[in-house]
Amino acid sequence: MRIKNMGLRGLAVADTKISFIDGEKGILIYRGFRIEDLAKSSNFMETAFLLLMGRLPDKSEAEAFQRQVVQARRVPAFVLETLRLLPSNAHPMDVLQATVPLLAMADPDLRDETRDGNVRKAVRLIARLPVVIAAWDRIRKGKDIFDPNPSLGHAANFLWMLHGENPSASMARALDVCLVLHADHTFNASTFACREVVSTRAHMYAGVAAGVGALSGELHGGANARVMEMLKSLENVDDVAGWVRGRLDRKERIMGMGHAVYKTTDPRANILKEISARLGEETGQPQWWRISKTIEEVALEELEKRGKKDIKPNVDFYSASVYHVMGIPADLMTAIFALSRIAGWCAHIIEEKFAEAQEKPMLYRPTAEYVGDYCGLVGCTYVPPEEREQAAGVPSA
Amino acid sequence: MRIKNMGLRGLAVADTKISFIDGEKGILIYRGFRIEDLAKSSNFMETAFLLLMGRLPDKSEAEAFQRQVVQARRVPAFVLETLRLLPSNAHPMDVLQATVPLLAMADPDLRDETRDGNVRKAVRLIARLPVVIAAWDRIRKGKDIFDPNPSLGHAANFLWMLHGENPSASMARALDVCLVLHADHTFNASTFACREVVSTRAHMYAGVAAGVGALSGELHGGANARVMEMLKSLENVDDVAGWVRGRLDRKERIMGMGHAVYKTTDPRANILKEISARLGEETGQPQWWRISKTIEEVALEELEKRGKKDIKPNVDFYSASVYHVMGIPADLMTAIFALSRIAGWCAHIIEEKFAEAQEKPMLYRPTAEYVGDYCGLVGCTYVPPEEREQAAGVPSA
Repeated sequence: MRIKNMGLRGLAVADTKISFIDGEKGILIYRGFRIEDLAKSSNFMETAFLLLMGRLPDKSEAEAFQRQVVQARRVPAFVLETLRLLPSNAHPMDVLQATVPLLAMADPDLRDETRDGNVRKAVRLIARLPVVIAAWDRIRKGKDIFDPNPSLGHAANFLWMLHGENPSASMARALDVCLVLHADHTFNASTFACREVVSTRAHMYAGVAAGVGALSGELHGGANARVMEMLKSLENVDDVAGWVRGRLDRKERIMGMGHAVYKTTDPRANILKEISARLGEETGQPQWWRISKTIEEVALEELEKRGKKDIKPNVDFYSASVYHVMGIPADLMTAIFALSRIAGWCAHIIEEKFAEAQEKPMLYRPTAEYVGDYCGLVGCTYVPPEEREQAAGVPSA
Repeated sequence: MRIKNMGLRGLAVADTKISFIDGEKGILIYRGFRIEDLAKSSNFMETAFLLLMGRLPDKSEAEAFQRQVVQARRVPAFVLETLRLLPSNAHPMDVLQATVPLLAMADPDLRDETRDGNVRKAVRLIARLPVVIAAWDRIRKGKDIFDPNPSLGHAANFLWMLHGENPSASMARALDVCLVLHADHTFNASTFACREVVSTRAHMYAGVAAGVGALSGELHGGANARVMEMLKSLENVDDVAGWVRGRLDRKERIMGMGHAVYKTTDPRANILKEISARLGEETGQPQWWRISKTIEEVALEELEKRGKKDIKPNVDFYSASVYHVMGIPADLMTAIFALSRIAGWCAHIIEEKFAEAQEKPMLYRPTAEYVGDYCGLVGCTYVPPEEREQAAGVPSA
């Protein structure tokens, strides 16, 4: 098995009890439960509890968890003051990455490395990231920010804080389902970054900030924003099919299609497709879902002709149109992903710290093959600068 | 070869031209040059150029690089204003992790993903992290901050900003050598975190913030602060040897001894040991070096008796006493590590982004073995909360 330069693809680096993917069959499971069942019957608060605690809460536990999250929504004043100092063109993911260590500074359990202490940190992160993101979107637009509304659920409160009006029950539920769908996905790049960082015994926030960084990349969470840019560029294009064919002819990717793990339809994409269609109609903006659907249909047909049967819509493909009709700007979409994935990140950090699925985990510290020069292991001869003048005998990059 | 749960230890995940370690022989090489030669004849500015550009600069290049770094020392005002808002007990590594994305917001080359654009970002990071750290130490103590002094070199300017007085030439040179020694170390946990994050195409700052998080862990850069705490706790202990024996008898670690890679003396520790002795005498504080030396001698003897011949002082063991006599507080020591390692992190991020040592790198996305329940792949049955009440059939963490 070749390992080097393969991005650890297909390599099981640890055990986990948190989630499971069968990429061939298109199955995603959180702690035993199929994503379809959770999307249909559960909600994000319950799913977050499930990921963190390893089992579904009973009624009183669910109520207590919801209450803890609501109470934790109050973001320390210095964090909001910081947001007011930032350049208004700062990217929301940079803002989020900066904010996570700021939130660390205000967490009374920061140095409590018990499991309970880490769950309390996770509750605060789950509660506060949405508040920070909504506040940032208001502040950068020069608008007033809204206090969290304790009578609103997690998704509804986010939309309230973002827009200053209560979302419809249907829209709030749609966002809640999106949060369920994005909450975990085994050892994806951001989750692996979280685990890798805390394997040094760094605290949870240090790991989460790394996860935010990884998620910001366009090969990971940054893809949903790119999908929306694509949809917008195609809004007035008569011939979406022609555009898709041209792209594939030029061997260019279609944003939001294809996945490192799924070789069939991403089960999350199926659910998001339905939500996109329904919400598009309800908000009087069916065009985004229609453009998406056309792209998908043409792309699947053309890809099949080209012998590429395993490139299908992924979770980013239909989430873009869903978020757009909720009034979420394209450059905020990756942050919405983070508001959900924070539950999985924290669960994985706890699993890593407490070896809950495995023996004591080791610090992630791989090696690399040195392919530069070293002059026969004795080291190249150091020549003083004045004698150097573009000296030879020095390996070039 | 067993891989799972082994922290990727010994596994070559990529090619690199940046640095090379022979852990058996105690050899460390940067871009072809032995660390001993660089510590003796080079300096941190030149070493940073070497790491970033793959070769030593000629005289005019070295001068230009130094000038660019000096010019880049000015930290944007909103970053310094943010520092003034933070709780004074915030840990310097949390402050640093928060600051890196703030610096991203002020970088005009943030979205310039050319190699040159990334080198310019690296220059700003190398120039600005010391300014931020010195400013934070002043601000948290309620003291005025000092502007960078363009006539001072990199290490001297940091000590000037920290203390408001110019260090002796000997002390400035000692810190500069420390920065050379810590500047790179192949795929250590923080460097791997940087590379992993930017493998998603995230920008350099997003990767560096992850590196800062990994470095903060006590199994990585956090160790030097722990060494200093150990030395302080032993200052008034008559029987250091007895303390060491007791610790080893109880199978406890000696902070700063042992390394994941070196099976013999860490070549950096030898150099730091000399610096510690010399600077201890010069500053009239020889006790820290003496305690360190006693610990080392007793530990090596006792470890040999116990059949553990490959646990030797690592880079953190003698750097603690060196930094201490420079007036650097223990909780700032890991940040000093970051001020140096930033050069290596940036070099590795560039290598990862531009595939300079290898074919096009893939996103790091390993997998994990699911060892939780999933009720025969169909998924466990979802029971509504009111019927649940500590429901059975749910996998426990």
